[in-house]
Amino acid sequence: MSQAGETGTLFVISAPSGAGKTSLVAEMLHADHKLGVSVSHTTRPMREGEKEGVNYHFVSREDFEAMINRGDFLEHADVFGNYYGTSQVWVREMLASGRDVILEIDWQGAVQVRRLIPECVSVFIVPPSAQALEERLVGRGTDLPEVVSRRLKEAREECRHAVEFDYLVVNDEFKEALADLLGIVRTQRLRMGTQHARHRQLLAGLCGEGDNQA
Amino acid sequence: MSQAGETGTLFVISAPSGAGKTSLVAEMLHADHKLGVSVSHTTRPMREGEKEGVNYHFVSREDFEAMINRGDFLEHADVFGNYYGTSQVWVREMLASGRDVILEIDWQGAVQVRRLIPECVSVFIVPPSAQALEERLVGRGTDLPEVVSRRLKEAREECRHAVEFDYLVVNDEFKEALADLLGIVRTQRLRMGTQHARHRQLLAGLCGEGDNQA
Repeated sequence: MSQAGETGTLFVISAPSGAGKTSLVAEMLHADHKLGVSVSHTTRPMREGEKEGVNYHFVSREDFEAMINRGDFLEHADVFGNYYGTSQVWVREMLASGRDVILEIDWQGAVQVRRLIPECVSVFIVPPSAQALEERLVGRGTDLPEVVSRRLKEAREECRHAVEFDYLVVNDEFKEALADLLGIVRTQRLRMGTQHARHRQLLAGLCGEGDNQA
Repeated sequence: MSQAGETGTLFVISAPSGAGKTSLVAEMLHADHKLGVSVSHTTRPMREGEKEGVNYHFVSREDFEAMINRGDFLEHADVFGNYYGTSQVWVREMLASGRDVILEIDWQGAVQVRRLIPECVSVFIVPPSAQALEERLVGRGTDLPEVVSRRLKEAREECRHAVEFDYLVVNDEFKEALADLLGIVRTQRLRMGTQHARHRQLLAGLCGEGDNQA
């Protein structure tokens, strides 16, 4: 339970494909149990091994569009004919209860989220070199050159928006990048606004309030 | 050597007497070699075991007042008839060379520093309870009750200004408080402004600049 006035922070994490974002976020959640990750809604079909409510909330186009019209989404996008979106309700409830929430979204989603929750903290992750990026995108297996080329183009477009983010993490050494990300979360919890709400009584006591001495 | 445009951060650290600030800052410097601490100027006499330029720069009242008049100080104070102050030159040179600097000063010094270097990051450290504070102040040995009472009053006055700081660290477990402080420093280095200057070439490469592909 959070104390009155203490709200969580929304962390928006974006990266070009191939920067290692998904593995890093998974480790963040593993290392820091006060962090929650938002499960997106999507209209794309469920794949083998996926679970409703774990990987995504799987909904119909009709339901998704009704949600858009009701303004239910914090951000949403149409990616090659499939909708993806983040519901506001769950995120706002988590934040209000004092928990921190991670959203893994692209730069366009980040723009939408900043508009609705300007106090969010946004982090952009990059690989250590352009060569590493290309190798990771190409190295996925037997994809057609056109597919690789499109991915590279998208990754570059994503990187052009890095400057819009609050923090930049370079994923050279996985452990260091993870420590960077966990440090950003930890530091955010130390901000005076949050801490003042959390330690109201302590601060009052230290100032000698409710005390006849001094 | 720092790259063009990359400047260091000035960290202002304040605390009531007895919060463990000095030990924490010493450990920070030990753990993070990119951090420097400013050596203050003072007019108080050198004590046994102290060294010029290590503990303080020991100067005459006349010299100190000449420095005040030249505007040499980032902050200064008269504490029971002795002057203490932080020279601007060294701090600004360190920051310009891309190094981070810690200033251990009181809330009044912090007010002065924020006016001259508004982009500084300020941290307030508190003990875990009012009782712990009192015990640490009383527990110093054989001090007169009046001295203990004055220290307590000063500590309470200092705590009343905690809200003016960017971050609050509660020194309950020393190791955790140290990790908090090191996390604040690490996180500051990840801010987009700093990182963008540091990784200009990397970002340009990731965006495909100077490249015919895409």
